[in-house]
Amino acid sequence: MNELTINLQQRSGTPLYEQIYSYIKSDIQGGHLKSGEKLPSTRALCKYLEVSRSTVELAYEQLLSEGYVEAVPYRGYFVAEINGLYQLDTQSHECSEKTEQEKKTFRYDFTPNGVDLNSFPYNTWRKLAKECLVDDRAELFRLGNPQGEPGLRDAICSYLHQARGVNCSPEQIIVGAGNDYLLMLLTTVLGTEHRIAFENPTYKREYQLFCNMSYEVCTVDMDSRGMSVSGLEKSGADIAFVMPSHQYPLGIVMPVTRRQEILKWANQAEERYIIEDDYDSEFRYKGKPIPALQGYDRNGKVIYIGTFSKSIAPAIRISYIVLPRPLLDMYREKSSFLNSTVSKVDQMILQRFIKEGYYERHLNKTRALYKNRHDVLLGNLKGLKQMFDISGEHAGVHLLLHCRKEISETELIRRAEEKDVKVYGLSEYYVEPQTETGATILLGYANMNEKKICEALEILRGVWME
Amino acid sequence: MNELTINLQQRSGTPLYEQIYSYIKSDIQGGHLKSGEKLPSTRALCKYLEVSRSTVELAYEQLLSEGYVEAVPYRGYFVAEINGLYQLDTQSHECSEKTEQEKKTFRYDFTPNGVDLNSFPYNTWRKLAKECLVDDRAELFRLGNPQGEPGLRDAICSYLHQARGVNCSPEQIIVGAGNDYLLMLLTTVLGTEHRIAFENPTYKREYQLFCNMSYEVCTVDMDSRGMSVSGLEKSGADIAFVMPSHQYPLGIVMPVTRRQEILKWANQAEERYIIEDDYDSEFRYKGKPIPALQGYDRNGKVIYIGTFSKSIAPAIRISYIVLPRPLLDMYREKSSFLNSTVSKVDQMILQRFIKEGYYERHLNKTRALYKNRHDVLLGNLKGLKQMFDISGEHAGVHLLLHCRKEISETELIRRAEEKDVKVYGLSEYYVEPQTETGATILLGYANMNEKKICEALEILRGVWME
Repeated sequence: MNELTINLQQRSGTPLYEQIYSYIKSDIQGGHLKSGEKLPSTRALCKYLEVSRSTVELAYEQLLSEGYVEAVPYRGYFVAEINGLYQLDTQSHECSEKTEQEKKTFRYDFTPNGVDLNSFPYNTWRKLAKECLVDDRAELFRLGNPQGEPGLRDAICSYLHQARGVNCSPEQIIVGAGNDYLLMLLTTVLGTEHRIAFENPTYKREYQLFCNMSYEVCTVDMDSRGMSVSGLEKSGADIAFVMPSHQYPLGIVMPVTRRQEILKWANQAEERYIIEDDYDSEFRYKGKPIPALQGYDRNGKVIYIGTFSKSIAPAIRISYIVLPRPLLDMYREKSSFLNSTVSKVDQMILQRFIKEGYYERHLNKTRALYKNRHDVLLGNLKGLKQMFDISGEHAGVHLLLHCRKEISETELIRRAEEKDVKVYGLSEYYVEPQTETGATILLGYANMNEKKICEALEILRGVWME
Repeated sequence: MNELTINLQQRSGTPLYEQIYSYIKSDIQGGHLKSGEKLPSTRALCKYLEVSRSTVELAYEQLLSEGYVEAVPYRGYFVAEINGLYQLDTQSHECSEKTEQEKKTFRYDFTPNGVDLNSFPYNTWRKLAKECLVDDRAELFRLGNPQGEPGLRDAICSYLHQARGVNCSPEQIIVGAGNDYLLMLLTTVLGTEHRIAFENPTYKREYQLFCNMSYEVCTVDMDSRGMSVSGLEKSGADIAFVMPSHQYPLGIVMPVTRRQEILKWANQAEERYIIEDDYDSEFRYKGKPIPALQGYDRNGKVIYIGTFSKSIAPAIRISYIVLPRPLLDMYREKSSFLNSTVSKVDQMILQRFIKEGYYERHLNKTRALYKNRHDVLLGNLKGLKQMFDISGEHAGVHLLLHCRKEISETELIRRAEEKDVKVYGLSEYYVEPQTETGATILLGYANMNEKKICEALEILRGVWME
């Protein structure tokens, strides 16, 4: 019989049964204990090692359950044939990938895509996460509802109704891991036989996404009230992709009259739809709140999409789409076999975050924060106003400076960069290069505190107006 | 000046500052405190309520940060204009959706898609989740790497190399929320100008998915070694979707010779690719392990896809795709702007689950569990062998019974259902209805314990062989 001389560490923090288990396992893996060999009986081993019998039994059970040993009735434990067992070593791979082309970082960065993470309620989120993980056990790891858990959709529905005037029931909502995924899902419902019109300039990612999905895409120019409806008519498109609450990047809030015109356009043909991307409607500082375009729709023409990545945190990969009834029926028929892309745990945390009032608090807090930065930025533009017109300042987390002087965007950006201030040019948002209309700079303020905003503006005044 | 008569509950568990905050907030929301009205000074209120001054200050700060009150220097706190503030009530919506058409459940269910959740290591998972949430704070909620966190891809790469013979580096791996999503992502790289051949019978979801994405799809018949290569040749397809490790539903393990033939087919034209779906390769009971088809590929022809939904738990929505170099370049150019669909927290938990050896343990444990059920099932088929041939029993979590008698699948299923046993017919996996080849029944055993398997087989013998 084998005697296993295991050097047990009483105070190592690793339970004794685990030490015995590890020792025998590595002996089997290393070939010191060979297939078919008999292990000492639990009684013999516990005496030999001077531990309790249950400790040895626990170790043997673990080995048994993982297939390292076999139990033969009336005879004892034997080393199993371990050829097929998984023995993964955990050595680290040489990763040849260049890690994120070391993007130059700037002391002051007016990125229009910022989200302030300091205001994220970590402790609340962590508390909810812990409670969710304790609560449900098995249920949490079973496959969930393809559209998202009913409780979460319920919470989103209430929020959309109260805060955005969206008219829907929870069954029309599909929860998914980000807008990109939900738009892909939408394409499986719509089919690719459509021509999609984007605003010009626009959020280029979504434009690119639809290109990649083999759609015909086109752009329609904007006027001061949003996408030109006569342009849309002329484009031959049957789907319009718009951002009425706060157009990105122009910051235009589409007035009610234009909303009615676009809806009228959609109502003129059966296959026409409007995709309303309500990406940052949470932040609005001035003027009466205008309900979402979807709220005016009486004919099932608007596909509404929104996200928690902007209003909570970028790594919260949870978005939602609201399908009008006719498309909901098509979704059920064609694509409802696709499983949800958001884990149940995350859905449950978010559901409680909304239902228990944390989301409301968080929204009000971030809005107050952004409003303050917005006010400081606006208040400190004085000097620059001699050279720039301002627009897009009523909502969102960025505004635009339109230069009245003969100077190029590139030059404005270059001068700022030289002094460690990063600003963004409007032209990169145009799908087709624009005929020269003057330089326009985007200033985002979500990620800059008031002090930094003042300092950076001081620098910009210096380099731009010299 | 306003006196706020707040009935503070010392022992309610809600902190005092929170009670003051809630009281004032609801007074503002209810219109009892009107915009512009002055609040009592913190000094006055703390005296009046007999609490410490810092308690009142904390309450006021909360109200300030959420925009309910405004601070005017040297004058005090005033009720703000709250028109635009979020005031979400948490009432529950009437959900008109039919909740999951009350699927009939059976006492014995031989579903071929089962996963045993009793063996899921809840405590480990919860422990890792807690530790991940404590560790990183802000970093966890920032946007991550579009392909998935490098550490996780590293861990997956090691696993694939050791356990599956997959030849790749972490930079070729993209992590995503489920196979469906990753295949959608793949279509954005490939474009839709392809004809895709599926095995017949096959896993119909993916077939349906590619149909919905406007691909030309076709099916190629199987022989005993897998997809027929002459059939593939004739189909005119340029992409073959195969499951060489364990074909679903036939359970065929593709021999090395056939693998070479399929690779040869792919090498004959530049645009040809093979999608290898390795959905449950973790479970294999007999014969020498055969590396993944990807491991034989020397020309960048195989797109490999795998998932943790089968090997850990269905609600773990994490899959991975390994792109060959030419497609990796196309992905980087066209689609790398698409953000990851898996939250960083989940990625970090999984990374530690693999790197700290839990995944290895879990795999060995579930495999031992499934092998036992597999052995019990096989061992108890004796009587049924007079009537059925068995196949597909070397891997996976189901096997097939081919009936030699003149009796229809429907009839076999019906008789079983009458006695509360659910079995599955092969015909539902054929895209085009087959010319009559005899009834074939699928028996999955992942979700049934040994006792139930024996009982159910006893019943089947009774109703099928009477």
